[in-house]
Amino acid sequence: MSTALPAALVAELSALLGADGWRMDDGALEANAQDNSWRHQRPAAVALPADIEQVQALVRACRTHGVALVARGAGTGTTGAAVPLPGSIVLSFTRMDRILGIRAGDRCAVVQPGVLNGTLQQALAPHGLFWAPDPSSAEICSIGGNLACNAGGPRAVKYGTSRDNVLGLVAVTGTGEVIRCGGAYTKDATGYDLTHLLVGSEGTLALIVEATLKLTPLPVSQAGLRVLYRDADAAAAAVSRLMSQPVVPTRLEFMDARSLQLLRLNGADVPEAGAMLLVEADGDHDTLPYLLQALATAAEGDGMIELDVAMEGRARDQLWAARKALSPALRSVAPGKINEDVVVPVSRIPELVSGVQALAREYALTIVTFGHAGNGNLHVNILYHPDDADENARAHAALPKIFELTLALGGTLSGEHGIGLAKRDFMAQAFTPATLAAMRAIKHAMDPDGILNPGKVLPPV
Amino acid sequence: MSTALPAALVAELSALLGADGWRMDDGALEANAQDNSWRHQRPAAVALPADIEQVQALVRACRTHGVALVARGAGTGTTGAAVPLPGSIVLSFTRMDRILGIRAGDRCAVVQPGVLNGTLQQALAPHGLFWAPDPSSAEICSIGGNLACNAGGPRAVKYGTSRDNVLGLVAVTGTGEVIRCGGAYTKDATGYDLTHLLVGSEGTLALIVEATLKLTPLPVSQAGLRVLYRDADAAAAAVSRLMSQPVVPTRLEFMDARSLQLLRLNGADVPEAGAMLLVEADGDHDTLPYLLQALATAAEGDGMIELDVAMEGRARDQLWAARKALSPALRSVAPGKINEDVVVPVSRIPELVSGVQALAREYALTIVTFGHAGNGNLHVNILYHPDDADENARAHAALPKIFELTLALGGTLSGEHGIGLAKRDFMAQAFTPATLAAMRAIKHAMDPDGILNPGKVLPPV
Repeated sequence: MSTALPAALVAELSALLGADGWRMDDGALEANAQDNSWRHQRPAAVALPADIEQVQALVRACRTHGVALVARGAGTGTTGAAVPLPGSIVLSFTRMDRILGIRAGDRCAVVQPGVLNGTLQQALAPHGLFWAPDPSSAEICSIGGNLACNAGGPRAVKYGTSRDNVLGLVAVTGTGEVIRCGGAYTKDATGYDLTHLLVGSEGTLALIVEATLKLTPLPVSQAGLRVLYRDADAAAAAVSRLMSQPVVPTRLEFMDARSLQLLRLNGADVPEAGAMLLVEADGDHDTLPYLLQALATAAEGDGMIELDVAMEGRARDQLWAARKALSPALRSVAPGKINEDVVVPVSRIPELVSGVQALAREYALTIVTFGHAGNGNLHVNILYHPDDADENARAHAALPKIFELTLALGGTLSGEHGIGLAKRDFMAQAFTPATLAAMRAIKHAMDPDGILNPGKVLPPV
Repeated sequence: MSTALPAALVAELSALLGADGWRMDDGALEANAQDNSWRHQRPAAVALPADIEQVQALVRACRTHGVALVARGAGTGTTGAAVPLPGSIVLSFTRMDRILGIRAGDRCAVVQPGVLNGTLQQALAPHGLFWAPDPSSAEICSIGGNLACNAGGPRAVKYGTSRDNVLGLVAVTGTGEVIRCGGAYTKDATGYDLTHLLVGSEGTLALIVEATLKLTPLPVSQAGLRVLYRDADAAAAAVSRLMSQPVVPTRLEFMDARSLQLLRLNGADVPEAGAMLLVEADGDHDTLPYLLQALATAAEGDGMIELDVAMEGRARDQLWAARKALSPALRSVAPGKINEDVVVPVSRIPELVSGVQALAREYALTIVTFGHAGNGNLHVNILYHPDDADENARAHAALPKIFELTLALGGTLSGEHGIGLAKRDFMAQAFTPATLAAMRAIKHAMDPDGILNPGKVLPPV
């Protein structure tokens, strides 16, 4: 693929999309050149279609000219999935940002892909409803992006990820055809499940242009526990106990000793301990104390140091502020950060945590581990100074070892960030050749000329 | 395709599978000739592989000879999905019926496809766990069959269908390759979601040879309400109210006036009413009364006649016995029954129920409607005498009208039975040509020679 767009394509698309919908100026190219993986590549142009028909025309034109199309929501992804390829056109969904309907009686909303997660939550609150996915970028990330990478967040342990909270999709395939699957209903045994297939496919199979989202009633009341443990093993064992009794926590977050150190370094009032769990429940005023009691009972056990019941209000807010402060605090330790989101079976969390600690020692690196323990989904953060060539090399040498460890424990590469470019070359370790071949065959079925976000998700053959 | 198997194939497969695994006798052919749709077609042979390698070899041999393979669990499906094609080989999973592992700490079980749903539930109970799907045939249907048709049941309103309760699959594609996707973890953003795609594909994309199932802790306690309404509209409005408050019922079943009449005809002690809801909740001894109170409050409203709290024990058992007696009771009215399982958005249930009543009048038919109202998934049973040519014709003329009504209300053909042969020719009404084309492209990607259950799910081009 040449890096200059064919003149005929530029003429066609600028006429189709108009001045608001077709940008080739430096400002637009630069604004769409990277995501939160900090990879950087300017596209050849940015297309901002206003409706489904424009998306179809855009796809057809790109197909005719063999030009790659990279779908983009708000650019908050961490894997490079939205980072342009040389000579590609970014398809930004910024202008397709309308909430098309909120159907409270059917517990669903119909939205365009450019709607921000935070905007949707605000619109839903007066109806007493919410959409479950709550990535840490919720205020500024788009629903289309959430669906494209199957975003999760702490709440997923009770309410599921993006894939679990979508009922139907309208999408444009690599041939420019509109497909419609699912709808405003919660049970479906009619034909192939294209809806869930498209979620997590990162704009490589089809472009999501409309989504029917499953909504959940806002709980009346929430409350949390802060539980300190002697070491990571004791906390991990508590996670197993918590997840094998009937009360499902709303959030169940793990923080290792280094996470707690970091919080203290940044002035947070967190006692010394080997590890900490934040456990939360929701319900109504009558039932919540019982739920919390069940969770507290499960959290208790060998190695528990202290259990604080922090009910609603300021104490609870402080707990979660401390958790949210962790990710930015990492930058104060070292400017470089490789933030992974591996997943293991819940019973294997102790081995993951101790294995990561062993790798940190072996490679002389600071690795901070915290995250969504109820789902076995931990953020393993390798911290390093990019200018220190030796440390940089050790950081990037440790990464494959972390994936190796995760896979050996029966886990997988990503729980909520997706693959993009960052983890693409580890896919061959995660899947058998036959499984990757099946994925490639499906890619070919939906996008026969390979114009939709080529080179992402699947490793080169 | 000829209806006689090539001699070379017979020789190869009988040598591969042995006497226990290769049957061409009348008894075996007859035993595998129909499902619960009462369609009947003998296969050319029945293969009963004992392991994954035998499944692979079987697929490869059939592919070489261009012979169709029809996967079969326990044959309890209602759509003809497991009914053989002339000259086809039935692949029965009867001998692959082992529970490979119960991992209580990870809330999952690994099973072969031939394990019966009821057998699994029994094995799980001592661990305090269950698998959510509870079709009415639960005692005698297979997990593989449940996954193949995305089986549900009353419990799906709280706990989801088969698709919502599977974490990973091992499957053999139409080329005989083994694919492995997902695993013993509950969050996954790694590559394309083949797992959920295969669920509900009725053996047409790949053969499920192993499944990792998501388990749920058994609730400590359950309780139910029986609520009578003036008419179906009042009951349907109550369903909407019940589903838009935060306490999700464990089961929420609707029965129309004809269903209640039928129960009384069969000696059940059910008062006169226009419609009835059975509402159930689960929890622990402390919280259950509050949950039940929230549901009772939502069930109350215009048109409610009577609300009975039937707590645990005999009263609750009687309620559910009455509900379960309904399906067999239908046969006492008329020997012919077309049992559909359409789905509509919950808010459209009143229109579905009144529309079905109007069709019953227009076609002079008895149509009984009951089912899983919390999911908008209603069983519409057209009753008729097959020997009465005129009534038979009216019954089959009314069926497309019911699908038309369902689709016009924004619903879909099947919530839990699947498509098979029975609803295949209505798929072109449910989906756009481009959507069907995408499904066909995926079929071709997974089964390029079309040997896996051809002619099911997708209508002929």
